Amino acid sequence: MAPKDVRALIREGKINGPTAGMSGGYAQANLVVLKKDLAFDFLLFCQRNQKPCPVLDVTEAGSPVPSLAAPDADIRTDFPKYRIYRHGILTEEVSDITPYWEDDFVGFLIGCSFSFEQALINNGIAVRHIDEGTNVSMYKTNIDCVPAGAFHGQMVVSMRPVPERLAVRAAQVTSRFPAVHGGPIHIGNPGAIGIRDLGKPDFGDAVSIRDGEVPVFWACGVTPQAVAMNVKPEMVITHAPGHMLITDIRDESLAVL
Amino acid sequence: MAPKDVRALIREGKINGPTAGMSGGYAQANLVVLKKDLAFDFLLFCQRNQKPCPVLDVTEAGSPVPSLAAPDADIRTDFPKYRIYRHGILTEEVSDITPYWEDDFVGFLIGCSFSFEQALINNGIAVRHIDEGTNVSMYKTNIDCVPAGAFHGQMVVSMRPVPERLAVRAAQVTSRFPAVHGGPIHIGNPGAIGIRDLGKPDFGDAVSIRDGEVPVFWACGVTPQAVAMNVKPEMVITHAPGHMLITDIRDESLAVL
Repeated sequence: MAPKDVRALIREGKINGPTAGMSGGYAQANLVVLKKDLAFDFLLFCQRNQKPCPVLDVTEAGSPVPSLAAPDADIRTDFPKYRIYRHGILTEEVSDITPYWEDDFVGFLIGCSFSFEQALINNGIAVRHIDEGTNVSMYKTNIDCVPAGAFHGQMVVSMRPVPERLAVRAAQVTSRFPAVHGGPIHIGNPGAIGIRDLGKPDFGDAVSIRDGEVPVFWACGVTPQAVAMNVKPEMVITHAPGHMLITDIRDESLAVL
Repeated sequence: MAPKDVRALIREGKINGPTAGMSGGYAQANLVVLKKDLAFDFLLFCQRNQKPCPVLDVTEAGSPVPSLAAPDADIRTDFPKYRIYRHGILTEEVSDITPYWEDDFVGFLIGCSFSFEQALINNGIAVRHIDEGTNVSMYKTNIDCVPAGAFHGQMVVSMRPVPERLAVRAAQVTSRFPAVHGGPIHIGNPGAIGIRDLGKPDFGDAVSIRDGEVPVFWACGVTPQAVAMNVKPEMVITHAPGHMLITDIRDESLAVL
């Protein structure tokens, strides 16, 4: 189904679950909504930390329209589920943020690993958590992001086990897509980036790692959300995990080469 | 000479001319300084128009230190020459902007084509304006940038003649470097992007185009300066053409692949 048709069903409440696998070939986006007085520092944070925070689009203050990513979309209604955080605490989960919208809100659409997972699959590199029907494994690391204004924190990564002989290919394939996290942050040794136990992810689910496979780590779009929470602003709105905006941007059009 | 040594000579006034060819292998940067109240919209403009406006670093409001690009540099003194624009009009050309500096100034360092020109040369693709000892040819186009807040305008491009058989290689080589304008905007037909006469560039100098050569057009870092002027802010400071900051960033480290 075309992105705009899926968005219409989401807007009407007829789709309210995770969006994985919908409108194959089109990029999906994470959401962070902040008040304008924090928007410059947050955009600067994203600019300085492009691997975890690849910006696909930013709305003008007060406008709910992502004019680059999906010009006929409305970021207040076109994600299946949202989370409202007040002073850093999750207070509500809703399917429409129109009642919460203020005229100085700025929405950040952040690229999502769904796009590069398709590129891996297209190259014969299976994605374990998809095959196992779970959420990707995500871990806090000891890698400091470059701070910007009030925003600071450590990088969150996602991990996918890859057969050793395909690890370089996985790095090549995903490096073509800097707008959706790009090449891996690390290959091989979880301890080197501060991860103690691959079996206990900080977010998402653990997956099996087979003999002859190496863990490959990519910067994760949970990072900007975690960093925004650190600041404990009066209000932050994000999408609920897995409940993304389906944009009009074709995955392949995000490739730099 | 290492970047920090060249910057020291510039700071002491011992180098005051164009920086082309200095500290080979290190990225040089364009400058736009604006007041903080315009900084979000300008950063958003750059984010939406990454080919003409690839951001290498942005200083925190009031700080003259480009902490990512050259942590021991001072953007007030380390360019050989600056231009001060008041309400869109060039009023002064100076070698030190410390007396003009205000505590809400934000400096934007924008990537520069010097980096990808070296990549072209390394691939056996000669760069005509370097061989002819002139400035690169730059043209206004009819390509609208994506507007952001008050900032809007059309893209400025630079042009380099390339032998037809090497045009694809030129596109490949420069596509590796999105942080310094990336792949070409157009190959071949100046009229298609609103350029009437290649012999009459809007900025820089005309170069000879030989039989069997095709004009190749790249997005140009003059674009963000031109766009900032359109807004006619109370004050904008830029570098003087060709008088750049030499950063500590190695050209090759900017390659995505």
